[in-house]
Amino acid sequence: MKDAIRVGLIGFGTVGKGLAKTLLSQHERLTQKVGVPIILSRVADIACTSLPDEYRDVVLSNDAGDIFTDPAIDIVVELIGGIEPARTFLLTAIEHGKHVITANKALLSTHGKEIFEAAAARNVEVGFEASVGGGIPVIKALKEGLAANRIESIRGIMNGTANFILTQMTQHGTPFEEVLAEAQRLGFAEADPTYDVEGIDTAHKLAILMSIAYGKHVHLDDVAIEGISSIKPIDIDFAREFGYCIKLLAISRNHGDHVEARVHPTMVPTDHLLANINGSFNAIQFTGDTVGDVLFYGHGAGMMPTGSAVAADVVDIGRNILAGAINRVPALSYLPQHFSRPTITPMGELTCPFYFRVTALDQPGVLSAVSGILGRHNISIKSVIQKGQQPGEPVHVVLQLHEAREEDVTRALAEIDALDACPEPTVKIRVLIDEH
Amino acid sequence: MKDAIRVGLIGFGTVGKGLAKTLLSQHERLTQKVGVPIILSRVADIACTSLPDEYRDVVLSNDAGDIFTDPAIDIVVELIGGIEPARTFLLTAIEHGKHVITANKALLSTHGKEIFEAAAARNVEVGFEASVGGGIPVIKALKEGLAANRIESIRGIMNGTANFILTQMTQHGTPFEEVLAEAQRLGFAEADPTYDVEGIDTAHKLAILMSIAYGKHVHLDDVAIEGISSIKPIDIDFAREFGYCIKLLAISRNHGDHVEARVHPTMVPTDHLLANINGSFNAIQFTGDTVGDVLFYGHGAGMMPTGSAVAADVVDIGRNILAGAINRVPALSYLPQHFSRPTITPMGELTCPFYFRVTALDQPGVLSAVSGILGRHNISIKSVIQKGQQPGEPVHVVLQLHEAREEDVTRALAEIDALDACPEPTVKIRVLIDEH
Repeated sequence: MKDAIRVGLIGFGTVGKGLAKTLLSQHERLTQKVGVPIILSRVADIACTSLPDEYRDVVLSNDAGDIFTDPAIDIVVELIGGIEPARTFLLTAIEHGKHVITANKALLSTHGKEIFEAAAARNVEVGFEASVGGGIPVIKALKEGLAANRIESIRGIMNGTANFILTQMTQHGTPFEEVLAEAQRLGFAEADPTYDVEGIDTAHKLAILMSIAYGKHVHLDDVAIEGISSIKPIDIDFAREFGYCIKLLAISRNHGDHVEARVHPTMVPTDHLLANINGSFNAIQFTGDTVGDVLFYGHGAGMMPTGSAVAADVVDIGRNILAGAINRVPALSYLPQHFSRPTITPMGELTCPFYFRVTALDQPGVLSAVSGILGRHNISIKSVIQKGQQPGEPVHVVLQLHEAREEDVTRALAEIDALDACPEPTVKIRVLIDEH
Repeated sequence: MKDAIRVGLIGFGTVGKGLAKTLLSQHERLTQKVGVPIILSRVADIACTSLPDEYRDVVLSNDAGDIFTDPAIDIVVELIGGIEPARTFLLTAIEHGKHVITANKALLSTHGKEIFEAAAARNVEVGFEASVGGGIPVIKALKEGLAANRIESIRGIMNGTANFILTQMTQHGTPFEEVLAEAQRLGFAEADPTYDVEGIDTAHKLAILMSIAYGKHVHLDDVAIEGISSIKPIDIDFAREFGYCIKLLAISRNHGDHVEARVHPTMVPTDHLLANINGSFNAIQFTGDTVGDVLFYGHGAGMMPTGSAVAADVVDIGRNILAGAINRVPALSYLPQHFSRPTITPMGELTCPFYFRVTALDQPGVLSAVSGILGRHNISIKSVIQKGQQPGEPVHVVLQLHEAREEDVTRALAEIDALDACPEPTVKIRVLIDEH
């Protein structure tokens, strides 16, 4: 029997430090659960010149190669993020027969197939619990806890920064730009917030969850993405009037021969649990044909929550090493031979209810023109509110539309925005359908 | 390599049928995940004379003994509920070297130690995911996903019937007795609803979660229990006025050398996620020192959700059988040699804020007497509302109290209820402290 599980960590940034702290503070607890100690043996970081005192037994290096070639290391944890050199590090570690753990959603949603195939060929494990939902054990829940389910849908708030911004906008009526600047000042948003606010980070995570849920290699490029930077406080106010909250959701519905894959601002009924997830928290809801609706909630990012998830992967893989049960659970839930490419529902074929905010000059006939266009595109109106601005300024014509085809909506919008009476582009927000 | 995992099921009631249906409908999916088919080989049910057509390959018997002695059976699933003969069946199955799965929280919270020790001695597995939270994979999440956490607290809505009743009372102002009768008519509540509405079922589940969370054998008798049958619509109205919802919560806080274990109606701030769990849904929140707050939500009971959880256990144990990795994860999270008896915080030493509704004759000096008693017991008042009834009838004096010691509260209540001016016992409801 092995006397310990030895971990090599690449990247001693925030998340790397979180893992190191966790393995240290939970050392005795984990030994009592696993049976042997879990030891952080090596850290490689390109910029780090010394480790804090409590890590005096850990060997520091500026070269990740020192970890791959150390025969004592069982598991290599990559926490540097980005595509390269992370991809090369993971593939090299696998090549050396090391089990690997990563929190790198950008990498897995673009080069996941390559990494999982390399790991399967070398019969090593890939742990990636921390790549989605931070500290929430959502990947384990989906792969194992919900194994006996056809996953019918995925819906989630998967980016804490975007949710923090929308929550602030909703609670205080502050414009997007101001909240973002404040979030950057507080360290809740990065200097370049594009991935977070434009939905790309959320799309990374959706691609990973869809792959596991459906047994299909879903790529970032499969996901239709819209961010929250064009959401205005006025839209949040109208949403509230209609009984909705605006959230950046990842949504996938399983239609059997095709699956939806989309990230966009969404009107969520205020009594829906997802409408009540505030601040930087994440929540991911699955609907399974056996279990019905389940939802998992927690911190989607941060040093310690992410450390908790990575440490859980270390424990999981460590137990498989000790039991001689490598790849006891297939990395992507289904065995590799049952994996295939997905067919993604074209966005034009999507149907859902819509919210439109048309900005129009305050002159007769506008509503008639707009409703005429909608009618010609088979889009029926559920309700209309027209709200005046200052005299002489354009008015907001706000429409709730019944379920309509995205393609029809896009054509209708082009015609509406071409009207002389419409000086600004119409704002369109999709409305959540909750069948359950 | 084994060509299949074979399951014997004892009890073909609602939950047993749910498992059978699940294994049938998910047959191909599970084979694609596990690598070999999972086959329901035998069913034993004392009353069942024939199985539906789709189970034509399943051998039916009225004698559970036929399952224990069939050498082809790998896993015995007990879904009859109650203490006996369930306990004897599980112990006999273990004696025969079978892995066992049960959803029986009443049994595990009273005879769990005996069953887990027997299983450890015989080196077989005990799966019990369905015993808490129905279809929510909460036990796996706690044992594995949150392995690297000191669990600081557990808070949950763990009984769907009680939550359904409280939700109806809250939304429609209907008295407890009427909602219960309606729930019984609809089949949401049992003919004898004691376990559900008096908090006993919730206490079973809390004892199981605490055992895993803390590595201590917690017994049903360790849990202080109060049910919801004395909650009146008027208390729900007052709660709303103060910004609270009344929920039946299981609560445990970890004080290191002692742990709280209690089930009682609780005032939950309306913006807390637990206040937004409605109808028959369950939600369980853990606070971990590494991960912070996480919450798991879903159907806490029902044929198919429970089937989903039991099937997940079958998959888990099946994978361990195939990998030769029995008891890869200790049944109760910590290895048996690290298990001990817990020290439970005496209820008298509990401190939390309280709500009091004093029913008093409408005469001068009552409020002064009540506040005098509270003051003498070191209980300070946060707010008072006095609401009149019809002229000549008693009034409600409603007090929000700051955090106070349960022991002091009990003594103060005895004095208040002994006042001549108080014709009815005072209603006391504890208020949730959410440190996080």
